[in-house]
Amino acid sequence: MAGAITIERILALQAAYIRCIDNNELEAWPDFFVDPCLYKVTTAENQRHGFEAGIIFADTKGMLIDRVAALREANIYEKQTYRHILGLPNIAKNGSAEAESETPFLVVRTMHDGQTDVFATGVYLDTYRVTGNDLKFSRRIVVCDSSRIDTLMALPL
Amino acid sequence: MAGAITIERILALQAAYIRCIDNNELEAWPDFFVDPCLYKVTTAENQRHGFEAGIIFADTKGMLIDRVAALREANIYEKQTYRHILGLPNIAKNGSAEAESETPFLVVRTMHDGQTDVFATGVYLDTYRVTGNDLKFSRRIVVCDSSRIDTLMALPL
Amino acid sequence: MAGAITIERILALQAAYIRCIDNNELEAWPDFFVDPCLYKVTTAENQRHGFEAGIIFADTKGMLIDRVAALREANIYEKQTYRHILGLPNIAKNGSAEAESETPFLVVRTMHDGQTDVFATGVYLDTYRVTGNDLKFSRRIVVCDSSRIDTLMALPL
Repeated sequence: MAGAITIERILALQAAYIRCIDNNELEAWPDFFVDPCLYKVTTAENQRHGFEAGIIFADTKGMLIDRVAALREANIYEKQTYRHILGLPNIAKNGSAEAESETPFLVVRTMHDGQTDVFATGVYLDTYRVTGNDLKFSRRIVVCDSSRIDTLMALPL
Repeated sequence: MAGAITIERILALQAAYIRCIDNNELEAWPDFFVDPCLYKVTTAENQRHGFEAGIIFADTKGMLIDRVAALREANIYEKQTYRHILGLPNIAKNGSAEAESETPFLVVRTMHDGQTDVFATGVYLDTYRVTGNDLKFSRRIVVCDSSRIDTLMALPL
Repeated sequence: MAGAITIERILALQAAYIRCIDNNELEAWPDFFVDPCLYKVTTAENQRHGFEAGIIFADTKGMLIDRVAALREANIYEKQTYRHILGLPNIAKNGSAEAESETPFLVVRTMHDGQTDVFATGVYLDTYRVTGNDLKFSRRIVVCDSSRIDTLMALPL
């Protein structure tokens, strides 16, 4: 039997996800998703107009793994680190095996020379699914508030 | 019987309040308050000196509704969006029908051209009241850290 | 018997700690620590390289008290205020009398003239201990993301 999804489990998953990225443990990042999945980064403007094209799009775990490999090759972590700060999730639906929520986020980027700026803000539109003993994302749509997202963006949000 | 006020209900109210504003559903904003109420935006400096005059002041739901109408007329949402990030509430008092808390906040503003900045930081001084099945604000004093608040400020905090 | 450490107690301690600093109640700050303790502010780069030298170091409550006295003498609060926004703690270990967590933070600084900037981001590496009825920090290592920390930094993080 799949367990019911408690708010504690959702909070723990959200906290672990950003820790993985901010601690540069990117190889563990794809494991936060079921397979197949939907991971998309887009802008509020695109989302409003129903444009399909996002900044990043992946619908299998393999695509997420490929993305990490590409990031490692580009050695992008030499150049920048992220710090995610999350707001509280609004739980929209919650069944026993699947739930949906909206969670505001803020990402501060620190460059190699120590310079710091607000890199992105927005909201995570998430669908969670229980798989075995784990809670994972079946869908994470990252909606960025600004349409002026750094085109060199590389780290996952 | 009015139910006791759990931390879960307080967190859910806080999360729903900022979602309403950040998603541009302003018409629903006055419903977060009882009537009469107190909604005030002020600065830490004014608050310290006991100055009554705030940046925004409303003590009835009608005044909140008027404010939304004025914002819609000014079409202010064409020009900017907000993203609220909240810290955890410090619950100061908690009876069965009324509670008080202090909650830190940060608001990032994104302008139409995509430019992003930290618009305001501060603390919400809140009093909650149970009305029927709902938890609402009977008082929300928004104390901004900076005395240099944008005088064109229009969206609710 | 020492009580088990619930997530609610950890969240309440974290919220009270930042409220103490952001409300300029610094004299109460040392009481958040057991004695002896470890309070250290360092950078991610130093931490990665295992450098002992931090920006701030204290291992007794007396050192924390001395620090507050020095800050009061320098009248530093005339010049700046902080606003801490915390993310959710990742609880790493949790026994009945001691627990460990990692908590992301963001600090916005407001200068006397009203200017606001992101002062620091990073992560709190904390060890908690139950002493009597209270939960306190036995260790708080503040790891700042940027190596370019304002050398005039004075308020506790």
